[in-house]
Amino acid sequence: MATVHLVEYDEATPEVRQIYDDIMATRKVDWVNNFWKALAVQPALLQRTWDAVKRVMAPGALDALTKEMIYVAVSVTNACQYCINSHTAGARKKGMTDEMLAELMAVVGMSNQTNALANGFQIEVDEAFRSGGRDG
Amino acid sequence: MATVHLVEYDEATPEVRQIYDDIMATRKVDWVNNFWKALAVQPALLQRTWDAVKRVMAPGALDALTKEMIYVAVSVTNACQYCINSHTAGARKKGMTDEMLAELMAVVGMSNQTNALANGFQIEVDEAFRSGGRDG
Amino acid sequence: MATVHLVEYDEATPEVRQIYDDIMATRKVDWVNNFWKALAVQPALLQRTWDAVKRVMAPGALDALTKEMIYVAVSVTNACQYCINSHTAGARKKGMTDEMLAELMAVVGMSNQTNALANGFQIEVDEAFRSGGRDG
Amino acid sequence: MATVHLVEYDEATPEVRQIYDDIMATRKVDWVNNFWKALAVQPALLQRTWDAVKRVMAPGALDALTKEMIYVAVSVTNACQYCINSHTAGARKKGMTDEMLAELMAVVGMSNQTNALANGFQIEVDEAFRSGGRDG
Amino acid sequence: MATVHLVEYDEATPEVRQIYDDIMATRKVDWVNNFWKALAVQPALLQRTWDAVKRVMAPGALDALTKEMIYVAVSVTNACQYCINSHTAGARKKGMTDEMLAELMAVVGMSNQTNALANGFQIEVDEAFRSGGRDG
Amino acid sequence: MATVHLVEYDEATPEVRQIYDDIMATRKVDWVNNFWKALAVQPALLQRTWDAVKRVMAPGALDALTKEMIYVAVSVTNACQYCINSHTAGARKKGMTDEMLAELMAVVGMSNQTNALANGFQIEVDEAFRSGGRDG
Repeated sequence: MATVHLVEYDEATPEVRQIYDDIMATRKVDWVNNFWKALAVQPALLQRTWDAVKRVMAPGALDALTKEMIYVAVSVTNACQYCINSHTAGARKKGMTDEMLAELMAVVGMSNQTNALANGFQIEVDEAFRSGGRDG
Repeated sequence: MATVHLVEYDEATPEVRQIYDDIMATRKVDWVNNFWKALAVQPALLQRTWDAVKRVMAPGALDALTKEMIYVAVSVTNACQYCINSHTAGARKKGMTDEMLAELMAVVGMSNQTNALANGFQIEVDEAFRSGGRDG
Repeated sequence: MATVHLVEYDEATPEVRQIYDDIMATRKVDWVNNFWKALAVQPALLQRTWDAVKRVMAPGALDALTKEMIYVAVSVTNACQYCINSHTAGARKKGMTDEMLAELMAVVGMSNQTNALANGFQIEVDEAFRSGGRDG
Repeated sequence: MATVHLVEYDEATPEVRQIYDDIMATRKVDWVNNFWKALAVQPALLQRTWDAVKRVMAPGALDALTKEMIYVAVSVTNACQYCINSHTAGARKKGMTDEMLAELMAVVGMSNQTNALANGFQIEVDEAFRSGGRDG
Repeated sequence: MATVHLVEYDEATPEVRQIYDDIMATRKVDWVNNFWKALAVQPALLQRTWDAVKRVMAPGALDALTKEMIYVAVSVTNACQYCINSHTAGARKKGMTDEMLAELMAVVGMSNQTNALANGFQIEVDEAFRSGGRDG
Repeated sequence: MATVHLVEYDEATPEVRQIYDDIMATRKVDWVNNFWKALAVQPALLQRTWDAVKRVMAPGALDALTKEMIYVAVSVTNACQYCINSHTAGARKKGMTDEMLAELMAVVGMSNQTNALANGFQIEVDEAFRSGGRDG
């Protein structure tokens, strides 16, 4: 069970309810997931986090599904059970198929492996890759 | 400096050269980056890793640029200097703009933050997200 | 279930019981938590770890509550379910309120986010921050 | 070198300069550190991150120094060179002594150790610690 | 529950069954564990991963038990519940005693602690340790 | 440069010198590496950490080389540059060959990969692996 009380809609202040309403409207669902109910322990934290997530995850130079898959990749690497499940669900809803999930995981697994090899052998960054190839 | 000798093309065995040749041909470049030169300490490790990277990173259900960006996301989360630089360079080469890189980082930063919040409050996975929304 | 047998007080050797007694006396509780019962698989490991925890967590230049909150911050970043729960409980017992927990999590979330951004963009340490501002 | 161009004050847009000015005014310094110059690659990312950092790090239920030390603890656990140096410098500026830094590190080291032990033995959370002792 | 359907032997394609058969034959068991059943969502991922695991874990310059214990050490550091349990079981089967497990965990705990201290104080690598003592 | 002053032998207190002497005698070397010089910022931290390292790394149910390789595996997974270099050097000194290092890295890379896959697909621990096969 969460280490803070989850604030349900019925017991929420008008300020918190307004955020809950925006979450549901933005996501086109009729319920609020536990993550936000926990953050409501401090309305300022809830407000700030929701505003940021809403803006960051909106389609821009990257589309919404790509962003969800990147979210899953990070969550897997951090072993965050809640986020793996919620963002895998989010990605599926945006069109991720089982085949796409398998390729996503293949890349996540492969990069975790080669990260270990590169760090493990303490390999120097090649001249051409310095600055992430910015001047290449 | 790397903890193993980096095997240069000139000193490589024919077996290793063949892999180097395939790396250069596949990537349409005329040089081999340090990562592979370090793995050549054990030709079987080099062969196996290159074969897997080649297959995993090829376009499939996900395109090659999306795969590179996922690679960057994982490498950032693991603080792998070599991989962040090499795969940022790889993604740029495949078309990633500064704007896309900024959005990628915004998502990576945001997911690292919410991973911490979800773990920190020990939030239970919502019924609807179980199994990554597989039955949703 | 734990990967080793948890040694209960009744079945413990006199050597282990003495440590259990010290744990309970130091913490002013009448029970021993699972962490120590697992470490008792090797009495030397139990002894060494308890001695170190006792000394490190005692008030010094930092007070005991601050130390507990730092413990929580690390445990969250490492996704350690046992430690998040036990040290959140420990911090509450030492006076941490829900508001303090929310601020702690806000800082932990924020630092995980900016860690990713700093690593992700491979930002150079400013001259003034070198050596952690030791000579500043 | 950073994977994006660091935006210097002289070349910044009025929008970015305004944020730089606020950073310097808030921190009572006459220069902007590299972290913000990198985020300026996308002004919205800079704005959002600075606003959040400013609010999260302001004294509240926790004082500013405690928050800086928590930031250091997370940055150490994530191996973020930039953040370890910048926030150790920040904490020193707010009054952290060498003795306090040593105790901070002792707690960070100890918690990384016991996190590994708790995860390694897969120890079950004690009844009394569930929900972080919320109902205790 | 897993985010993908676990493919049971009875419903598997001949291609997947052949891999399952090889897993059981190699490990001298009459059942297939969940890890492989999840990877079967994409037969190419299953094939590639099994081939690599089979080759990497076979005795060579390092014996099979040492390899299993290294696997456990990494899994603990990554907080991977599945892998900690499966590879602790694998190591026991290959002869790891409770005493060996306790020493393994003591080293894993100690190295997580000193990793934090070395990163936390940003300690420079000694001349003699550069390149992992390769030229020493 | 380190965030604390490195205490050289010549300027050390008799208490710290005694520990330095023990480190050199135990390791049969005539110099003290930077790690210990940084910990000397707080003699109690130096004493406690050295005592623990000395005892944990001594041969027991596991031999000294196996322990060094486990240390390297954890350090790689944590991206600790200092520890990767110092313990790779330590392992070489105890007899690790390039071939053994390559196999060590192959296992470390493989386990980081499969950790990601197991977490990523949220695979349930098989009945037979529960408790790390303790009752198996």
